[in-house]
Amino acid sequence: MPPELLRAVEMIAHLPGIGRKSAFRIVFHLTKQSPQMIQEFCDSIASLATDISTCGECGAYIDKSHRCEYCSSPKRDRSQICVVEQPSDIIAIENTNEFFGLYHILGGALSPLDGIGPDELSLAALKARAETQKPKEIIVATNPSVEGNATAHYIADMLKPFSIKISRLATGLALGQQLDYADTQAVSQSFRQRISI
Amino acid sequence: MPPELLRAVEMIAHLPGIGRKSAFRIVFHLTKQSPQMIQEFCDSIASLATDISTCGECGAYIDKSHRCEYCSSPKRDRSQICVVEQPSDIIAIENTNEFFGLYHILGGALSPLDGIGPDELSLAALKARAETQKPKEIIVATNPSVEGNATAHYIADMLKPFSIKISRLATGLALGQQLDYADTQAVSQSFRQRISI
Repeated sequence: MPPELLRAVEMIAHLPGIGRKSAFRIVFHLTKQSPQMIQEFCDSIASLATDISTCGECGAYIDKSHRCEYCSSPKRDRSQICVVEQPSDIIAIENTNEFFGLYHILGGALSPLDGIGPDELSLAALKARAETQKPKEIIVATNPSVEGNATAHYIADMLKPFSIKISRLATGLALGQQLDYADTQAVSQSFRQRISI
Repeated sequence: MPPELLRAVEMIAHLPGIGRKSAFRIVFHLTKQSPQMIQEFCDSIASLATDISTCGECGAYIDKSHRCEYCSSPKRDRSQICVVEQPSDIIAIENTNEFFGLYHILGGALSPLDGIGPDELSLAALKARAETQKPKEIIVATNPSVEGNATAHYIADMLKPFSIKISRLATGLALGQQLDYADTQAVSQSFRQRISI
């Protein structure tokens, strides 16, 4: 195999979720494409380095215009801030069409075993926003994992002095899930957080 | 989400075996890399269009030097040609360290339902090689699928006039496979092709 081909395989095999077999498959696929298509592909990837940065306020991705589509939009409700772990979580929330406030990206969740403490996340920036922007509600949308829950409790403690409503996304049974197939944790949580109808 | 980011996601989601969720994950991963690393990645992909071509003789990938590492190597045994469907199959065979002859890449297998007839594969070129290079043996290493078997039989028929030994890779039980878990086809094939010990 030509060394250029193997180098491309190595590069692609380093991407998350792609093994060497898939990398070979992708490289063989690319070699069959037109030079124009490959150039377009490369330009598109290169633009990630040159055109994309993150908002200094909330941490969301912004383009060359350097204007955050959430922070700079007059249509967004400034009284609510939704706290998420990763920029990709914003997509999941935007897709619901339930939330029209601002975002705050932590950059992960507290995980002492992985060396991620409060200083590794943008928690100080969140505190500063709570203090200066005085939102009415902060919705903590960290993942329903051990780390996500710990982070949510840390945020609730940290923001206690500001008398802001702090909420957390509901957890329990997944929509459409069957009770007898659900794990005990989920059932017990749905019991405890039951709502009156 | 910035449009450049979504364009990169679309590009990556078009690669084989990658869905939109994985594409997002890869793009988020890339945005966290250094501009140097992204440049290196793009250069490596771009080199697939500029530096890689295929050998006019066997169809294997060759680099800028335009010399096929199999056809132009004095160490390879010119009396054997191994016929494979795809360039990636060469890797599987080279890894065995069992074969040191030349290759011939068909570009697929006969599949009339998909519109792949003899003219879509490099079968005429294989016939020409059999005629001019006069190898002692042609090993047909197409996949053990309906299409691969049909292609193997087509090749055996096509090369009958040349009195060359035509062989086919053994099929049957996979190494380490348990008899009671093997499918009937595989067991029956291993029975028919049993070897004396």
